[in-house]
This record gives sequence, structure tokens and C-alpha cells, in this order.
Amino acid sequence: MNCTIITIGDELLIGQVIDTNSAFIAQRLNEVGISVHRRIAISDDLNEIQNSILEAWKMSPIIITTGGLGPTKDDITKKAIAELFGVGFKRDEQTFQHVKAFFESRNVPFLPINEAQADVPENAHVFFNTRGTAPGMWFENDGKILISLPGVPYEMEHLILTYVIDKLQKQFKVPPLYYAYIQTSGLGESFLAKKIEHVESQLGENISLAYLPSPMAVNLRLSGNMKQKEEIDVFAYQIREALKEYIYGDSKIPIEEIVLQKLKERNKTITLVESCTGGFISNLITNISGSSAVYKGGWNAYTNDFKIQELGVQPEILTKHSAVSEACAKDILENALTKTKASYGIAVVGYLEKYENQKPHAYIAYGDLASIKLKKIDLFYPRIKSKEAIARVALISLYKEFLN
Amino acid sequence: MNCTIITIGDELLIGQVIDTNSAFIAQRLNEVGISVHRRIAISDDLNEIQNSILEAWKMSPIIITTGGLGPTKDDITKKAIAELFGVGFKRDEQTFQHVKAFFESRNVPFLPINEAQADVPENAHVFFNTRGTAPGMWFENDGKILISLPGVPYEMEHLILTYVIDKLQKQFKVPPLYYAYIQTSGLGESFLAKKIEHVESQLGENISLAYLPSPMAVNLRLSGNMKQKEEIDVFAYQIREALKEYIYGDSKIPIEEIVLQKLKERNKTITLVESCTGGFISNLITNISGSSAVYKGGWNAYTNDFKIQELGVQPEILTKHSAVSEACAKDILENALTKTKASYGIAVVGYLEKYENQKPHAYIAYGDLASIKLKKIDLFYPRIKSKEAIARVALISLYKEFLN
Repeated sequence: MNCTIITIGDELLIGQVIDTNSAFIAQRLNEVGISVHRRIAISDDLNEIQNSILEAWKMSPIIITTGGLGPTKDDITKKAIAELFGVGFKRDEQTFQHVKAFFESRNVPFLPINEAQADVPENAHVFFNTRGTAPGMWFENDGKILISLPGVPYEMEHLILTYVIDKLQKQFKVPPLYYAYIQTSGLGESFLAKKIEHVESQLGENISLAYLPSPMAVNLRLSGNMKQKEEIDVFAYQIREALKEYIYGDSKIPIEEIVLQKLKERNKTITLVESCTGGFISNLITNISGSSAVYKGGWNAYTNDFKIQELGVQPEILTKHSAVSEACAKDILENALTKTKASYGIAVVGYLEKYENQKPHAYIAYGDLASIKLKKIDLFYPRIKSKEAIARVALISLYKEFLN
Repeated sequence: MNCTIITIGDELLIGQVIDTNSAFIAQRLNEVGISVHRRIAISDDLNEIQNSILEAWKMSPIIITTGGLGPTKDDITKKAIAELFGVGFKRDEQTFQHVKAFFESRNVPFLPINEAQADVPENAHVFFNTRGTAPGMWFENDGKILISLPGVPYEMEHLILTYVIDKLQKQFKVPPLYYAYIQTSGLGESFLAKKIEHVESQLGENISLAYLPSPMAVNLRLSGNMKQKEEIDVFAYQIREALKEYIYGDSKIPIEEIVLQKLKERNKTITLVESCTGGFISNLITNISGSSAVYKGGWNAYTNDFKIQELGVQPEILTKHSAVSEACAKDILENALTKTKASYGIAVVGYLEKYENQKPHAYIAYGDLASIKLKKIDLFYPRIKSKEAIARVALISLYKEFLN
């Protein structure tokens, strides 16, 4: 049972928009045992839309499209689908009332092009979209399914979670897949592979192992079908034994959520002082709903003056060791922990790019007032990836040594 | 002249990785007049790789693939390509020496699976990869081009910019495209469309107008070929006249870069106090190389205690108006400007999610000590998009009223 995802929109082909929809849909489908055969991005072109649907149906009984359902002239997905099925349009009354109310509540006039948002091909089963003006649609033809969703992620996600997955599961009764996760940090992909060669060579045809690398961490995922659960668990155990010291988790939950969850469970709090990461870690943490329960707040201490004035760093530390030093990281963390009375903290200083004759590197201080640990990391990444690398090492270190 | 981009990797089809490579490649190709016909994501499967290359060549003379060039067993792109062309492998000596040195410099052993990184199909023209261990490759067959690049963005980007675009331009002598940009904020897509209907209806066949919406902003892009430059400029002028008050820029440069550039030009500085955005704006600004010249640093003032203790908010303001109020935003900005002596600043307070009976909204204070302006925005987005929306409104407002 597989699906092809077709994302529609000129903006995808000129590269001005990064496609996050496909990844979201693929994840949800995989969770219920529907694999994704291909993802295709095409332009807002009538023939392209029709041809790619017909081609995809040769390989996949299910197609999900996103995009091209907006009110402007460049949005022609509905027209392409109606033509493909040789049908006219009908007005969806619930959508019409909703769109009308939507505009009225925002005190903006309800234009004819917005009215047309409620028109759908005659053979459409409508998924009512509470989050926007374009409804989702489900079409069936000769045992093949075509699902058309809006391209706005917030709207698409809601329709996938509320209607699409449910209806697909009912219709296809797919056997679920089983996954085991091993989250590692501290060893590159090829060295991990070497250490678990003896396990990997025994996996057989139907269990697969994927390496999912990100800066400073590699996640491993074993997958197969639910009947192979026990077998997969044994392999996962063997991998964990072989990689012991490098492991920090056994799920696909990102480290910032793991840390937040642990802090919440233990009724503890955290503070952050970020120099070179400039708010990256704080942003990561506050992306999580409910973070205000554990995050006291922090400083983006970008300049030396700011470090001295706001975090009471001794100017001697800066002149003797410079701002990018273990001494400075330790000092600003100590001050932040004292000021905020947070249970734990992380402080980061570093150069994301080459500075004078120094290669990019960072110092991380982490822990509590009773015990501040220090770590140096060398950075081999471009600027933004380096922030991510530092954040990951900092959070994993705090978790492994203080919260686990 | 068009290209199909094929991204290879199981991780793309299970949705654990968001594909940013395609967007980067598409942008660079479009800049030199090569349009992208389709983007396709497929699994690390020998037949899929070969079939999708053969299919794509029917529609595009140029194919660029990324991914599947790593050292682990799941990476089989090179094998698929060699088989497709019916050739064996050769060792690329420059790559071999580079890979060896790469491992030695990091004090990690050089394993046989890493050696194989230097082996390429016999008919490959090699693009030397200074940023990683997998070289890029260029193949020609019957006037068709196949370019295979590593999937690591940092490595792929380097190869595209150093070799690929250059070689494509030499080989195909493509006529360049011409673009005009109009950056707007404050009006939704359909209202913009209504206001410029009279211009849009005159565009004709070969000039296209794209709406590129993001939270709280819509960018418009007119495109055609270089011969139509004057005509496109006239349309752009007409659109700018019709949308006057909503316009903040005429490029595709993101607002944070526009603000930073202006501050640099004028030798001014900025500070930030973020409550509900929790470091999002600071992170955005420090993503830009050279931001330390203008960014003094700031506070992620997440809790009330933090606001009182670090930013000297009067507890009365919090009890009388609450932390999510114009008064609080103004007070913390005033204090931050005074403390840091920054020329300009932004402060943000708000609820990203429904709180008690209040709908999500935020207050933004921005400006300088002589004149602090205030803005309220209602938030209709999910949590992370709301941060983006607030950041965009804050930066655009500061730019339009103080830096333009």
C-alpha cells in the first residue's frame, strides 16, 4: 500500500518556498503503514497537474496533492481535477457559510474570488477546513484515491489529522509498521556503521536500518512490520549494547523536548546565556508549548559590554582569557544561575566563523551551581548549522550528566 | 532549457528530513535562466534511481540528483548510475588523498568504507569536494546531462556554486531571466490581487506574477526573459503605485537582512527584548554573518520575575496591566535601550496560544528612546508561525518608520 505526494506550486520550482508539507504527510502516512513511493513537485500548470496524477496512479493507488487551491489566478488545481474527471462544479454550502463568516469576523469585505473558494468538483467528498477558506477534497475513481489539500501547512496538517488518515485507514486496513529508535551523539556515521556491522549484516530483507545524521548527532531507525516487533527489538538491543556510551535516547523525540519533559517531571527550571548561538537554544526551547513552566528566561549576550554589564563578567576574564574561553562560559553561567535561581543552565561562547587565526569553535558550560561542567567543540559546519551543533551538544550533555 | 531535480534518500520519503536542497538548486538554476520542470524525491532503491533518471530525461535534458553518495550500505546512487551506463569504477586520486587527509586531520581512523568514497563510475567527470568526502559527478550521454551531488547541503551548495552552474552555462548558453520584486505587508493575498487586478490582466502570456505569502507578508514576483525587462519594470511600477502604503521593499532580501544592512550603513545598533518570541528574532539576526557589528545583545524575558529583576519593570505595571500589555512592552524596551545604549530596539510580549479567555495576540514596542511606537497584532497561526509573524511585523515596522 503506497502513496505518491504531489505538491503543486510554481514557488516550489523556483525554490522560494521550502516544502515542509511532504515531510509532514509522509510521517503521518508512515505511522499507519502507508509508505510513500515518491514525492513530486510540479508547477501550477493544468497539463502538468493532470499528467502527474495519471502517471502517479500507475504506481500508487493513493495520491495526495497539496497546493493550488487559493483564490488567485495562478491557483488551478480544482479546475485541473474537474477536467480530469470530466465533471462540473458544485457549491459546498457549509464552506460557503464558513468563508463568509471568516471574512466578516476579520472585518474585511467578502469578494467574489473568495466566494469561489466554496466551489468544488461535483464528484468531490469535502473535508471541511476550519482553519482556512479552501476545503480539502477526496475523490475515488476505479479503486484509486485522489486527495487534494490546501498548501498552507497549518490548514493541510489539520485536514490530514482530522480526516485523511482516518478515512485511509478505514478504507485500506493496512498492517501497521514497527520502528525502534537509537539516538546517538559523539560518533560519525561511518564509525557507527563499523561498530554495528555485526548487527547490520544479520538484518535480512524486510528489516531496514536508516542512519539519520544531523550536526553532532546520528539517529538510527530500525523498521519492519508489526509482526517483526520482537526481532526488531532484539536488533535494537544489540545495537544499543554496541554503542552504549554514545546513546542518549530511544525515541524520535528531539533533545530539547526530552530535556523539557525531564525538567517538568522533576519540577526543575533552566536558564540560558547565549553568545555565539544568539538565541538559537532559547528559540528551540520556547518553540515547545508549555516551556514557560520550566524556562526562566535568558540572555543573548552578544557583545563584551553586555556580558560585563548584564552578567557581571570580570573584565579581567575577558582581557586575560578573551570572551571565547572556558573561564568566560563558566563565569556567565554561574552569574545567570545565581540571578535567576534556575536549577540548571547552559552558557555558550564561541566563534561560528574563522576569527583572526582561530578556527571556528565553541565552549559550552552546563550544569547547576554545585557543579558546572565544560566542553569544547570544534565546528566544521556553516554558520547556522554550527548553532544547531552547539545547541545539540549542550542539551545532550546536560541531559546525560544531570537529568538522566 | 529545463532541469529535473531528483533527491534520493529513504529519509525523504518517511518525512524525517525536510528537503532544503531542491529549493537551493532551483534558485540557482532559475537565476541563470534554467527552469526546473519537476522535483522528485525517491528512495535509496536501485531500480527507482535508474527508472526516475530515464523518465526524467524524456522531459528534461538536464538532471541533478542529490544524495545516496555516503559511505554506508544504504547509499547506492553511484552503483545505480554505473549500472545505468554499463561502466565500471575508477579511483579519483585527488579525492582519495583528500579523504585520507580529512580523516587524519580529525584524528580518526581511515576505514575501507571511507576509501570507497574516492571511487566513481568510469565515465564520470569529477567535481572535487573540499567540504566532504563524496565528490560531485557530471555525466554526458546522447546530449543529456546527469549531475550527481552529495546530499549534505553544505557540500552540495559548494559544488553547485563552484562548478555546476558555471559548466551548465558554458554548455547551454541560456538566455537569462529577469525578475522584479515587490515586498508587501499588511494586506492578504486576495486583497492584493483585487488592488492590482488592472495590472495583472495586462501581463500577457510570457510575463508571470507570483504571490509568495508568508505570515504577515506577501511578496510579489514578476518574471519574464531579459528582453522583456522594460515591460516588466513598467508593470512593477504600476503595482507599486497601486500598493504604495503596503510596500516595504523591492528585492527578495529578507527583512532581517534589510534592517541589519541599514543599521550598518548608518553606524547604528539594536537591542531586543523578547518574551513570547523567546529568542526567535535574536536568532534570526545572529544567523547573519557580521551581525555582531550592530547587535548589542538582548533578553529572552520569559517570566515575570525575569522582567522585573533584569529589566526593572515596575511590578505595578504587571499587576495593573499584566505582562501582556502595551505598558509592559514599552517599559521593557525603554529599560533595554537605556541599559545597552543601543540606537534602536524591539520588545515583544504576547500569548502565542489561547490563554484563559484571551485569543492569541502580541504587543510590539519598537523605535528609539526619543520615540517608542506600539503595535498590537492578532495571531491566527500555530505557535511557531506566530513567532515568525511577530518578528516580521516588528522588523518591517522598525524599518519603515525609523530606518527608511
